[in-house]
Amino acid sequence: MKKILVIGAGRSTYSLIKYLKQHSDNEGWKITIADFNLEWAQEKAGDHPNTSAVKLDVKDDEERKALIRDVDLVISMLPASMHVSVAKDCIAYKKNMVTASYISPEMEALDEDAKKAGVVMINEIGVDPGIDHLSAMKVLDEIREKGGKMLAFESFTGGLVAPESDNNPWNYKFTWNPRNVVLAGAGGAVKFIQEGQYKYIPYHQLFRRIEFMEIGEYGRFEGYANRDSLRYRKVYGLENIPTIYRGTLRRPGFSRAWDVFVKLGMTDDSYVLEDSENMTFRDFTNTFLAYNQHDSVELKLMHYLNIPQDSVLMDKLTWLGIFEKTKVGIKNATPAQVLQHILEQKWTMDPDDHDMIVMYHKFGYELNGEKHMIESSMVSIGRNSKETAMARTVGLPVAIAAKNILNGNITTPGVQIPITKEIYTPMLEELAEHEIIFTERELEYAGY
Amino acid sequence: MKKILVIGAGRSTYSLIKYLKQHSDNEGWKITIADFNLEWAQEKAGDHPNTSAVKLDVKDDEERKALIRDVDLVISMLPASMHVSVAKDCIAYKKNMVTASYISPEMEALDEDAKKAGVVMINEIGVDPGIDHLSAMKVLDEIREKGGKMLAFESFTGGLVAPESDNNPWNYKFTWNPRNVVLAGAGGAVKFIQEGQYKYIPYHQLFRRIEFMEIGEYGRFEGYANRDSLRYRKVYGLENIPTIYRGTLRRPGFSRAWDVFVKLGMTDDSYVLEDSENMTFRDFTNTFLAYNQHDSVELKLMHYLNIPQDSVLMDKLTWLGIFEKTKVGIKNATPAQVLQHILEQKWTMDPDDHDMIVMYHKFGYELNGEKHMIESSMVSIGRNSKETAMARTVGLPVAIAAKNILNGNITTPGVQIPITKEIYTPMLEELAEHEIIFTERELEYAGY
Repeated sequence: MKKILVIGAGRSTYSLIKYLKQHSDNEGWKITIADFNLEWAQEKAGDHPNTSAVKLDVKDDEERKALIRDVDLVISMLPASMHVSVAKDCIAYKKNMVTASYISPEMEALDEDAKKAGVVMINEIGVDPGIDHLSAMKVLDEIREKGGKMLAFESFTGGLVAPESDNNPWNYKFTWNPRNVVLAGAGGAVKFIQEGQYKYIPYHQLFRRIEFMEIGEYGRFEGYANRDSLRYRKVYGLENIPTIYRGTLRRPGFSRAWDVFVKLGMTDDSYVLEDSENMTFRDFTNTFLAYNQHDSVELKLMHYLNIPQDSVLMDKLTWLGIFEKTKVGIKNATPAQVLQHILEQKWTMDPDDHDMIVMYHKFGYELNGEKHMIESSMVSIGRNSKETAMARTVGLPVAIAAKNILNGNITTPGVQIPITKEIYTPMLEELAEHEIIFTERELEYAGY
Repeated sequence: MKKILVIGAGRSTYSLIKYLKQHSDNEGWKITIADFNLEWAQEKAGDHPNTSAVKLDVKDDEERKALIRDVDLVISMLPASMHVSVAKDCIAYKKNMVTASYISPEMEALDEDAKKAGVVMINEIGVDPGIDHLSAMKVLDEIREKGGKMLAFESFTGGLVAPESDNNPWNYKFTWNPRNVVLAGAGGAVKFIQEGQYKYIPYHQLFRRIEFMEIGEYGRFEGYANRDSLRYRKVYGLENIPTIYRGTLRRPGFSRAWDVFVKLGMTDDSYVLEDSENMTFRDFTNTFLAYNQHDSVELKLMHYLNIPQDSVLMDKLTWLGIFEKTKVGIKNATPAQVLQHILEQKWTMDPDDHDMIVMYHKFGYELNGEKHMIESSMVSIGRNSKETAMARTVGLPVAIAAKNILNGNITTPGVQIPITKEIYTPMLEELAEHEIIFTERELEYAGY
């Protein structure tokens, strides 16, 4: 028997734990699910014969070490900042480890120790980061093996609502942490590179500098830039690529309307509004507009941001309720917190709504003097309120990576991300069995 | 004989030291001018019989204490952050002190000690802050003495180029620290209150939310909001005033054009541009615009920011040289540093140019059921490249305050700003003798 410890039993672990249970008889696994909230752990463990649930305060060194010492592999689904103490124990007790989080500088610093201990530590093996690495590296390696020279790489991911549940004028609902959606892009200029030229977009213009794309039967999407495009040049071995761009996908028209909130200052999280508790949604909107005793909040907003009265933008804004006299009721709230509260009234998923993960890569390259372009896309639809697209695309690659480590298919030690053929080939194959499938297509080369 | 120590002998001390010299015989003053740069101190001291120059490293406790112990009054013209050690010595040796800087929390914390020691410590007695306090408090006290109830207070100050030297399409030159001009308003939302409603303006909209005003023969100006309006409610005893607004004056059209730099992201000081040294001014502008191999930087900018081709905005931008192929030549520069460099090519004062300080207050109040409005304005023109309006309006009130303390006309101890009648009445009278004159005028009441 091999023992797996899963630390953290939040919503995003449903599909992960389901996979582990389903494979536990065949693979000979005993699974311990640990969470600070014992009920969550028990609920995820269920009454399956190969699982057990324990309470764990991950900050309690003794409790944590006792659990880790006793298993063969640790899956940490904790918030990224809490992985490090787990990772140190894994190195001390020579246990392999898997996480879905970005490698923090503290994690990266453990690489040498992990190699010395012969411990495999795979990070960034969820959806984004994770499946994007696998699918992008496969195509990049194929192009490079043919002798192609990379000219451009673009990559977009979006967590959206599935078409069958898409019934609002924004074509959007919260399928992910709402706070991250409200603060997306805030905090500094976006930097990327286009045809060898560095380009910078200040936050307040981010949602006006978008790209459009068609993804098969799912139709049209738009993408705005992420803040971290350039770090992928090194990660993917694209140091000299003249164009690289990473972004977030939305349905067309979302960014133009979201820009209204940015322009008004509603996404600011740096200060607290006076008497936010007793404000109405309408007061909140008005607080960003000049005083005028005669004009309506609606007209002031349209005039301020140059929005025509018959624009669909106004339909979107009105539908969200930003002009309504509903009380905010939150003390000492920042603008971003009030905006999130307003959005949550309308953008929350119904219990029978399905979510959708969309991923889209575009590769431009030159081979034998000719320019080529490939696009690779994946759409995954949630099955129900537990097996969401998010839970499946985060949890399944984590589970499959764990299996491949335990089976000896992944053996290279060190703190790493999944960019080697050893890792991505079997993983993409098995993900396809779970209907997480990339479709590749040759396009006519287009410049940027 | 009374001994005055002036610490700091930079450009803004010219008129201060001139005044002290001129009054030194009559008043019986000996003046010591101390600076880390002995040449500056010597140049300001000149060969006047009542002055001497010394080198002072203000961080050297012994040097500093030895100088302060020996005098009757200290004028600190150091940067605001460096006043505190001087202030502590002044309290220890029971010496009065004058500064033109904003009271820092560290200075404010010395108030009780200053009172115990019986030491007068007047701060914020330059132009803004300084003359604005004197002139606003005079009118505010008059209104309150009549029994008027304050409805609105607005106050604007601008450092500009005098009409006779105003020969560029921006009607602006640097008469003050250029870096402060480039970064004006950056760093957070502006908060103020209008008719009892809190209003917030994000930085990227600051230069699109302006007010216009006429100031006598000097014509039309515009004002954009300062970040600190609300703190003046308490300072001026206006805790319940429904409208308060403080701002910075420019000539009409400046803010609309400056907004282009803000919108592009050129005023960002939070990151370093790649290879800034080898960029041209044109490259710098292009780095904020999307890549397109066919379109000109000019057309991309006009299209991006929706500027008509025949707009005076384009004349302003072109005149500044932002489309020229001149090399930047500064290593590791932030966007704000490159922008400052470009502006300095065009906005630097010629040796025979004159500067101008403009101040404008508006007071709305209710008396016996009727609403009234008063405006109070002051324009001061620089006399030459040393006796600039800036040096005169900063230095003369500092010098006059020092005289009034030494003569026993100002005696209330403590760390304070000049808002009492004891201080502002004689000071406004003497400033008027130096042609720093406020003109008050009744207006018809206008709401906001």
